[in-house]
Amino acid sequence: MHAITIPEPGGPEALVWAEVPDPEPGEGEVLVDVAASAVNRADLLQRQGFYDPPPGASPYPGLECSGRISAVGPGVSGWAVGDKVCALLGGGGYAEKVPVPTGQLLPVPEGVGLEEAAGLPEVTCTVWSNVFMVAHLRPGETLLVHGGSSGIGTLAIQLAKAVGARVAVTAGSAAKLERCAELGADILINYREQDFVEELRTATDGEGADVILDNMGAKYLERNVTSLAVNGRLAIIGMQGGTKGELNLAALLAKRGAVTATSLRARPPAEKAAIVAAVREHVWPLIAEGRVRAVVDSTVPMRDAAEAHRAMDASGHIGKILLKP
Amino acid sequence: MHAITIPEPGGPEALVWAEVPDPEPGEGEVLVDVAASAVNRADLLQRQGFYDPPPGASPYPGLECSGRISAVGPGVSGWAVGDKVCALLGGGGYAEKVPVPTGQLLPVPEGVGLEEAAGLPEVTCTVWSNVFMVAHLRPGETLLVHGGSSGIGTLAIQLAKAVGARVAVTAGSAAKLERCAELGADILINYREQDFVEELRTATDGEGADVILDNMGAKYLERNVTSLAVNGRLAIIGMQGGTKGELNLAALLAKRGAVTATSLRARPPAEKAAIVAAVREHVWPLIAEGRVRAVVDSTVPMRDAAEAHRAMDASGHIGKILLKP
Repeated sequence: MHAITIPEPGGPEALVWAEVPDPEPGEGEVLVDVAASAVNRADLLQRQGFYDPPPGASPYPGLECSGRISAVGPGVSGWAVGDKVCALLGGGGYAEKVPVPTGQLLPVPEGVGLEEAAGLPEVTCTVWSNVFMVAHLRPGETLLVHGGSSGIGTLAIQLAKAVGARVAVTAGSAAKLERCAELGADILINYREQDFVEELRTATDGEGADVILDNMGAKYLERNVTSLAVNGRLAIIGMQGGTKGELNLAALLAKRGAVTATSLRARPPAEKAAIVAAVREHVWPLIAEGRVRAVVDSTVPMRDAAEAHRAMDASGHIGKILLKP
Repeated sequence: MHAITIPEPGGPEALVWAEVPDPEPGEGEVLVDVAASAVNRADLLQRQGFYDPPPGASPYPGLECSGRISAVGPGVSGWAVGDKVCALLGGGGYAEKVPVPTGQLLPVPEGVGLEEAAGLPEVTCTVWSNVFMVAHLRPGETLLVHGGSSGIGTLAIQLAKAVGARVAVTAGSAAKLERCAELGADILINYREQDFVEELRTATDGEGADVILDNMGAKYLERNVTSLAVNGRLAIIGMQGGTKGELNLAALLAKRGAVTATSLRARPPAEKAAIVAAVREHVWPLIAEGRVRAVVDSTVPMRDAAEAHRAMDASGHIGKILLKP
């Protein structure tokens, strides 16, 4: 088969479409013939040599895919050759075939195209695990989503609205904010022109956000704590603004607040399976009803993954960038 | 009646036993004739002028008491004159009488003396709300308690052991650690002589603590995050080591960890009532069975509260210091 390999870490040109050995499904795994994969920020870090795959994971990048099951390994039940699926991966999505533990498989939801489904696993699992399983967003509460027009952001807006929460977003352009508004966002903040702390405070009558989904890390830490409502929860899933920041514990205590930081990739299979099961139970019906969907920015041939990485680096995209083998 | 007043903030001598107007129970309150109160670190801050009572609270210090109900305000049911109670207070415990909202009242548990009960409300509500309601300590997990011989610490050890957790403690002397061991602590760390990160790592085969109950704040922030197990929760309830510390979000994310900071005093009545109700349901039976009890260091006449404050400042005590009017 072919896969995107990284002979030497570096810029987008480090991604090389090459012939590699075909994988085999192991115990409890199926082999998926990939219809599409999608780009995540972690792939850019992996390409640069800053984020090695966890032990046992594929050396090729790609944290999610969709496709058809082409082979079933020993000890697998409930899945059959020909099933249309999408999957959360520890790696290896940028390839024509990928082995997947069954705990990380999801059926393609009703009403969703096979390729489009490649953009669902990472965003649904990340948003559900953080905003709901960790931070317990409740109906009537306010969620602040940084990077509202990202793949994560566009899904978080829809999911939070579907459960009856109010949603504030930050984004870097009027076009991005307009897209967020179409998806249901109530409070729109252009972080290039406005102070999100002040805008959120005004829009919430001084209350702040009950939950914040943050991809900036250190750069926003102090302002995020300031923006929390009493009993608020700050869920950090990215550190695009650095890793080390000052935490004012007195400010956090005044909010009776919580700061959490998680990633999906490093979780053991049992935790991934629990998240995937929760997503199937809680999010898949909303997708089937058409209330929530993956926002796709563009589809790029997988052999041109470098182009897709350049697009994500430039941050002009809205939603997911898919890769088609 | 008499109460401890603070005409001018300052050292222990700022505490003045004085004649003050008798309080009246308001709507939904009872009046308690105080049998005893107890000293908390927050009282020392209030005495120094660093921790003003929340709006509506008594100006006198004292966050807990025990005694008998001597009057019942309008709209109260389920409590009667003569009932032996203890109570979580927003202030006013250092007095002969104190009005208490019924949501913050607890019956004196079976087998506990009336004065001794004054040492229960703050420690049980603080430990239950943080270690169980916020951090969700589970059977088989490891709890690290800093200041294991404090009032909070001695109660946390017993409660965690009662639910089947393993308990590590830090304390500053062999005598304090011995007392912690008698209460059930499994891992004893003298923070004056040992590195708690290293000792905990060794004693837990590298796993660390699932929950840390911390009173040091900034000074221990980095070491506490390092000491967390994967999926670990750091619950900060005091900042004796400062308020501003560097948080390494990459380290927190590697643990998929949570940092929380809370206080009881600032919570609105409904939240206090929910905690008190949970304590009555979950902790009171353990006290009645003799499996958990308040550890009392000493009882001091309330008019000599300055002496009790000096004792807590010196940190030679083990358990609670009670004040008797």
